[in-house]
Amino acid sequence: MSEQPNGSTPGAEVPRLGHPIGPVLGTEVPRFAGPSTFARLPGVERVSDFDVAFLGAPFDGGTSYRPGARFGPLAVRTASRHLRPSYHPELEIAPFATIQAVDAGDVPVNPFSIDDAVGQIQGHAGELLSDRRKLITIGGDHTVALPLLRAAHRVHGPLALIHFDAHLDTWDTYFGAPVTHGTMFRRAYEEGLLAPDANIHLGIRGPLYDRSDLFDDARFGFQIIRAGELDLLGLAEVADRIHRRVAGHPVYLSVDIDVLDPAFAPGTGTPEMGGFTSRELLHLLRRLAGLPIVGADVVEVSPAYDHAEVTALAAATVAYEICSTMALAR
Amino acid sequence: MSEQPNGSTPGAEVPRLGHPIGPVLGTEVPRFAGPSTFARLPGVERVSDFDVAFLGAPFDGGTSYRPGARFGPLAVRTASRHLRPSYHPELEIAPFATIQAVDAGDVPVNPFSIDDAVGQIQGHAGELLSDRRKLITIGGDHTVALPLLRAAHRVHGPLALIHFDAHLDTWDTYFGAPVTHGTMFRRAYEEGLLAPDANIHLGIRGPLYDRSDLFDDARFGFQIIRAGELDLLGLAEVADRIHRRVAGHPVYLSVDIDVLDPAFAPGTGTPEMGGFTSRELLHLLRRLAGLPIVGADVVEVSPAYDHAEVTALAAATVAYEICSTMALAR
Amino acid sequence: MSEQPNGSTPGAEVPRLGHPIGPVLGTEVPRFAGPSTFARLPGVERVSDFDVAFLGAPFDGGTSYRPGARFGPLAVRTASRHLRPSYHPELEIAPFATIQAVDAGDVPVNPFSIDDAVGQIQGHAGELLSDRRKLITIGGDHTVALPLLRAAHRVHGPLALIHFDAHLDTWDTYFGAPVTHGTMFRRAYEEGLLAPDANIHLGIRGPLYDRSDLFDDARFGFQIIRAGELDLLGLAEVADRIHRRVAGHPVYLSVDIDVLDPAFAPGTGTPEMGGFTSRELLHLLRRLAGLPIVGADVVEVSPAYDHAEVTALAAATVAYEICSTMALAR
Amino acid sequence: MSEQPNGSTPGAEVPRLGHPIGPVLGTEVPRFAGPSTFARLPGVERVSDFDVAFLGAPFDGGTSYRPGARFGPLAVRTASRHLRPSYHPELEIAPFATIQAVDAGDVPVNPFSIDDAVGQIQGHAGELLSDRRKLITIGGDHTVALPLLRAAHRVHGPLALIHFDAHLDTWDTYFGAPVTHGTMFRRAYEEGLLAPDANIHLGIRGPLYDRSDLFDDARFGFQIIRAGELDLLGLAEVADRIHRRVAGHPVYLSVDIDVLDPAFAPGTGTPEMGGFTSRELLHLLRRLAGLPIVGADVVEVSPAYDHAEVTALAAATVAYEICSTMALAR
Amino acid sequence: MSEQPNGSTPGAEVPRLGHPIGPVLGTEVPRFAGPSTFARLPGVERVSDFDVAFLGAPFDGGTSYRPGARFGPLAVRTASRHLRPSYHPELEIAPFATIQAVDAGDVPVNPFSIDDAVGQIQGHAGELLSDRRKLITIGGDHTVALPLLRAAHRVHGPLALIHFDAHLDTWDTYFGAPVTHGTMFRRAYEEGLLAPDANIHLGIRGPLYDRSDLFDDARFGFQIIRAGELDLLGLAEVADRIHRRVAGHPVYLSVDIDVLDPAFAPGTGTPEMGGFTSRELLHLLRRLAGLPIVGADVVEVSPAYDHAEVTALAAATVAYEICSTMALAR
Amino acid sequence: MSEQPNGSTPGAEVPRLGHPIGPVLGTEVPRFAGPSTFARLPGVERVSDFDVAFLGAPFDGGTSYRPGARFGPLAVRTASRHLRPSYHPELEIAPFATIQAVDAGDVPVNPFSIDDAVGQIQGHAGELLSDRRKLITIGGDHTVALPLLRAAHRVHGPLALIHFDAHLDTWDTYFGAPVTHGTMFRRAYEEGLLAPDANIHLGIRGPLYDRSDLFDDARFGFQIIRAGELDLLGLAEVADRIHRRVAGHPVYLSVDIDVLDPAFAPGTGTPEMGGFTSRELLHLLRRLAGLPIVGADVVEVSPAYDHAEVTALAAATVAYEICSTMALAR
Repeated sequence: MSEQPNGSTPGAEVPRLGHPIGPVLGTEVPRFAGPSTFARLPGVERVSDFDVAFLGAPFDGGTSYRPGARFGPLAVRTASRHLRPSYHPELEIAPFATIQAVDAGDVPVNPFSIDDAVGQIQGHAGELLSDRRKLITIGGDHTVALPLLRAAHRVHGPLALIHFDAHLDTWDTYFGAPVTHGTMFRRAYEEGLLAPDANIHLGIRGPLYDRSDLFDDARFGFQIIRAGELDLLGLAEVADRIHRRVAGHPVYLSVDIDVLDPAFAPGTGTPEMGGFTSRELLHLLRRLAGLPIVGADVVEVSPAYDHAEVTALAAATVAYEICSTMALAR
Repeated sequence: MSEQPNGSTPGAEVPRLGHPIGPVLGTEVPRFAGPSTFARLPGVERVSDFDVAFLGAPFDGGTSYRPGARFGPLAVRTASRHLRPSYHPELEIAPFATIQAVDAGDVPVNPFSIDDAVGQIQGHAGELLSDRRKLITIGGDHTVALPLLRAAHRVHGPLALIHFDAHLDTWDTYFGAPVTHGTMFRRAYEEGLLAPDANIHLGIRGPLYDRSDLFDDARFGFQIIRAGELDLLGLAEVADRIHRRVAGHPVYLSVDIDVLDPAFAPGTGTPEMGGFTSRELLHLLRRLAGLPIVGADVVEVSPAYDHAEVTALAAATVAYEICSTMALAR
Repeated sequence: MSEQPNGSTPGAEVPRLGHPIGPVLGTEVPRFAGPSTFARLPGVERVSDFDVAFLGAPFDGGTSYRPGARFGPLAVRTASRHLRPSYHPELEIAPFATIQAVDAGDVPVNPFSIDDAVGQIQGHAGELLSDRRKLITIGGDHTVALPLLRAAHRVHGPLALIHFDAHLDTWDTYFGAPVTHGTMFRRAYEEGLLAPDANIHLGIRGPLYDRSDLFDDARFGFQIIRAGELDLLGLAEVADRIHRRVAGHPVYLSVDIDVLDPAFAPGTGTPEMGGFTSRELLHLLRRLAGLPIVGADVVEVSPAYDHAEVTALAAATVAYEICSTMALAR
Repeated sequence: MSEQPNGSTPGAEVPRLGHPIGPVLGTEVPRFAGPSTFARLPGVERVSDFDVAFLGAPFDGGTSYRPGARFGPLAVRTASRHLRPSYHPELEIAPFATIQAVDAGDVPVNPFSIDDAVGQIQGHAGELLSDRRKLITIGGDHTVALPLLRAAHRVHGPLALIHFDAHLDTWDTYFGAPVTHGTMFRRAYEEGLLAPDANIHLGIRGPLYDRSDLFDDARFGFQIIRAGELDLLGLAEVADRIHRRVAGHPVYLSVDIDVLDPAFAPGTGTPEMGGFTSRELLHLLRRLAGLPIVGADVVEVSPAYDHAEVTALAAATVAYEICSTMALAR
Repeated sequence: MSEQPNGSTPGAEVPRLGHPIGPVLGTEVPRFAGPSTFARLPGVERVSDFDVAFLGAPFDGGTSYRPGARFGPLAVRTASRHLRPSYHPELEIAPFATIQAVDAGDVPVNPFSIDDAVGQIQGHAGELLSDRRKLITIGGDHTVALPLLRAAHRVHGPLALIHFDAHLDTWDTYFGAPVTHGTMFRRAYEEGLLAPDANIHLGIRGPLYDRSDLFDDARFGFQIIRAGELDLLGLAEVADRIHRRVAGHPVYLSVDIDVLDPAFAPGTGTPEMGGFTSRELLHLLRRLAGLPIVGADVVEVSPAYDHAEVTALAAATVAYEICSTMALAR
Repeated sequence: MSEQPNGSTPGAEVPRLGHPIGPVLGTEVPRFAGPSTFARLPGVERVSDFDVAFLGAPFDGGTSYRPGARFGPLAVRTASRHLRPSYHPELEIAPFATIQAVDAGDVPVNPFSIDDAVGQIQGHAGELLSDRRKLITIGGDHTVALPLLRAAHRVHGPLALIHFDAHLDTWDTYFGAPVTHGTMFRRAYEEGLLAPDANIHLGIRGPLYDRSDLFDDARFGFQIIRAGELDLLGLAEVADRIHRRVAGHPVYLSVDIDVLDPAFAPGTGTPEMGGFTSRELLHLLRRLAGLPIVGADVVEVSPAYDHAEVTALAAATVAYEICSTMALAR
């Protein structure tokens, strides 16, 4: 069929890098129509190479409270239709004209086995990644960060982790399971994936299981900036602390959408009162420009608890911001 | 990229008819993952020819009350993930192994002009249709039926219309507009698209603007079976009346999801109390087996008013049922 | 101001009966615009006399479980915008061209006192009612039926009660309160408002506090047709039983929307699984044509629990059906 | 503390059987207050022995599509507050005055391991069960039926299974997992838990993965009554077929709430258009009176997809019906 | 009828200005009862003259993404019931005792034609406006601002525009349509409705179609204060910039409710992460006191996407704030 | 039965103070399972004495607008499951290991009588309270604060009131009722329950019925910090003002959840735009450490208007914060 009803062009097209295939234009195909890829970007099968791929990791088998993040990639892609992604005025860049961004589809995870799913995500990410090719992965629950860190570590070595989240995610085990959405960063530390003393949590809040959680966390090389500290430190100081913490290392950025207050992100599995506003999160993300971000994830969107797509739209915007920062870094 | 992360194979593949490319299997890729095409079928760009195409017509500019059906194709495709479409036990057929079914994407409609959108849909459908190739179009509001009837009439001549709906849709004009979701079947009659006295409405209910609406409707060649008559006539007699009414003509089937009671289809623009149950609708659709259905639409899903996808799932199931009947007819 | 921006005409207009002022036409003012009266009928202040008035009784202080029916009149009026009320094809009448129907606004009830509210409703209804003038009252919880029965009894004497409901509403007291939404029909019996052995409940279901509830209820002159009996008796026999039960008496019709199954009416205070379908209720209501209905209420719509207006639309349609039957009786 | 603020009495109380401790009365403590046990019954720790226990099995790790049934027990208990459970008029029994019913709390399942959870449920059920003591388990996804069948089989031997569901649940494996919510009845057959040719599915509908699914299912000893057959056979004949099928065996009753149409049960994981109405399900359940039901489950309520508690209320009512039937059997 | 059941008084009443007819009092008629006018104010037909009229413009045919703002006036009026509007403590004024405010109903727009609707709104507003009489219009989508600017310009000449919005709304055309909710301020500039270099956008955020959008916008005389700049400039400086920008011109104030973050206004058509908080918007609106505001609109409330009326309540409060500022200006 | 399926231990257990029985651990019983007490703490019947009790007061008969707070205790307890309550890092305390906290169940209120309910709550609270034993009461509407103040006053004498709310709640009567959710603090003043000039409202906003409301309020001994003043004063100054205001008196803390902006607390009865963020509220609550808080309530959660539990979770977190502060005070 020579017909391309949704404005796309067939697989034969092989653009040179530097002349990226961009998203379907909202001025030609209404944003409620056309392909269901992230930001209506081309699928990975339509390009010969890429710089950044959006990848879905629809696994929620590591969730301790409200499940449903398996539908996260679907919801975030749907919300990403609403983005008019051509020009980012704060960062002064047209990301999808600067780099070749694509949608690499979903990892076909086994929903019944954490071990299988972690292996599938690690394998899948490993095949897509290279020194130049980067992934922005849409979860899924936060468990998916472990195989993504492993894959990134294989290419880049020890990573500085910038972690936006309400929770530390450095607990030990939960019901005997070593790899869950609350324990994967302890595993990452144990496996040597993290650069020493180069990691930072932002947005932490809520009570803990035990005071010793804090000592362990520090031992794994993390600095903590609690949500309430933002009022005391100010956005600029917090941004500076991030830069100081990760300086000199390749950076992995992990955004649990529950870093936002439940007002801004109701559609998530373990909401905590008192989080960041969406404007604060965007401000801090934009202050990451200049850092060598080699991989990222946006996780824990649980659409069954969302309303009017506010959570999914926030996650889609975060993913777009990260991609813009990566484009700027080139 | 040789990578096909979502289980699809690239455009180069040219299957022979009789060996159709089927949907992505739910046993290999979980149904919440993988492509966002209808029932995870291949996109039209991946096949050399097809028998039945699912087409989105995301236009709702002809809506008189609650808008939002522009998001209908998106919602119905999402709900169609849930179908396990391999074997239809009542009709005893494996539709997607029998015919080549595809997703032809969305018509890129102009949301601001009824005339433009009607022209775009008609043009798009005309290019896809042939004597053998059939369309099952997902609306959008019911306005889209007019260009679809025109396109089908060009191939097949005058059509017998089987119309499931709460409303007649044969009013004259509304605020001066001749083509809206309440008037398009009058236009179809005036343009000679309908076979004389071969048309039937099912599920009609609710009050009318005027008694003369009924006289006009009869003059246009329609028989009416009101929703409440189902209790008196029984399903078998209603099915017989459909067959008697359309005998000898190519059939166009138009399903406004509001034929269902609001309990079964809350997500629609002009709900009416007292409609069909979903089981009644499925029963009647399955009794259409044997009829020469040359085109069909499923319209008026307005997702912002839906809950837990019950309306979108009903529409997806209806589209699957129609496709199965078409497959059986081969 | 001579300006009437919403299509209404000013208070000076005094139509003769027989030439009623009808609703604002949906062909002139879109149904989502214009006045917020029931079915966009004229307010009572715009006419010199009327036949039927829709009255709001926004009181829910007698509710034992989920409150919120105080917002019922607002929600039912909003949903009634969607009615195209000109011609009723099953009853073959144009009700609002046959009788003068109006919206009489809301009784300004005291939300904190059952006694005050009951008195206010009784007083208000009493001023509006006459031998010819009838009320269709929108609740509010079912408590409001007691003052309405009192007001109707003052004009018409002992009344035969046709009562659609999941519950008997003939309990004695609840937390010491004699007049609540579960006890008001026992009070009505004790006060002599009901004609002996001329009353009938339809749609009763669910467990009871005590077996003796049934003996009491029979003693008060009620026949019971449980929801499940509809399957055994059929609609025609049930309709006949109603007619036989109330023959020879002026009829008061009370419809608790929870007579419908929760699928059809989720927005109510005490839902019970296993109720009537909306089509069954409409069928039975239409079979009441010919009965001398002197007053009616539609109660227990609790909009905070509704979805996509399905409950409010059902209640609005029921009220319209009752008005059509009243029009037919003239 | 001698204080019992929610109307309960302390653990020291040891009622004799025959004088059961009943639920907290709705006439003394409003139904929106008081304990959160099923139907506000006493907890198991408050009695010396019991006849029937309601048990929560909050596990959803075997779910293939929409998860969330881990919150099912919580939601069903909350909805059960609304029951006025004293007297069942159709069955003419006061179940909680006839037998000692209790709430046995939740099995503390491992959310990350199907194997662990199945073992925990089996162990827990085994400790509670005896020849006389029966369980009505609230899921949780349908996976929980396998350990419950095992525990019942250990006491009663091979069981006749009455299975209300949209799906067969006799598939082989799913992503390599042998025990999931779609495969557990094949495992039950293989383990010899089911009496030969004494099992029946009711309400089956929707497409299948393969035609051979039907042959396998028959081989495992199941008869199928598809949802649409109800219209052809009638309720009485269907009830007769159930009785004929299971005659002579101890009966296990498994109710997947998705046997109801999505209109009646939107809050579930794998909804299918065209299901039973709630009245049909209640009718069939009541026709089970007289059968030796030795165990039961009500599963697949996923509250995040529910609205206004309609699904949870349906499940709570089903559980109450089953308990009433068990009480009648004594 | 001499009866005024909802606390209103009939049309004959002709108050002198200076003794305005105020809203129905919440202490006499509960706020959930009584008339459905804005803030339960008198309808325009009940007064001989007025100072400020609230007007509904229920048109959403210019919407590019999520439609439904046609139901905006209905939803905002409903939410405005909740206002206790007698005394505004921050501005120290009792607005409805100071000026005569009325509800002028809805413009009966043609839902199918942008051109017709724009003409109808312009004509309607033109008849209501005078040098003294002002309008606060409730949308509808933002398209309605163009005819309102035209009508205000006819009375007052070139206008300084204060524009709260996430989006510039100065694009050129969209699908060939010159007047839509994203292009009307470019049309206003081209028509000479705007005072040169006296216009300001506040709250702009999100990516753009093209960098040149910013150059065009500046050329049309707009200053931009992006949402994120609020953190850097502070509320006081932003308020000062507004005053400096519009000094010396009659002011038109246009508030797209999507200037609020989606957390505060989910019920809108094109939400953007990172917006103003409701407290920031109120602060800035109150700092407009002293400016000669000659007209205003509050647009883009799309109730189908709202929750618990938070968006509609925000819009109603904004409209009340604007009216209070207008009252203060007298 | 020796069985404790939900991890609890039977009533015989009598822990010594200083060795409190804590909540069921989330590492042993998943948080979606186990008892439905607040934070899964022991019920009051399981301890010999306690320091702090969480008490439900499910009464909403004093509500002027959206009812439903009768379901508040149920919803807040459900949301409190999500708390991991062991260690509070900001206050550096493990509250439930420091003091014996319990759930004292619900007061069995009469839903139909404000007087009865107020008496029941007062009596119930009086029996639980002592000089050492404190209550944190979950409403219910704000009416419940009056009997709680009375009970606390009897033990502690005149109280300094810290009152977080959008509304003053010092009106006189409403529809003749002296005790409602808008008038109870005037009653408290009149009864001498409040220490002179030691009371403070925080978060007040929205229009008033009359300017004199402010004069009355001041006369009753209240200082007002309006929501918008937070931007001008800063959190530290506001916290200081609280301390200065209440110094030297026993403190009663009353938190109406509508002090939060509707974005953070949609599920409430009288929402007002422009409130506190959740982080601001938490900050101020934590700054209360050191004050002699002798009683507290968290009221006005109306779950039918909530979404994804954001309001209920906020209320549960507030209750936990208060308890932590009380623990710190020991």
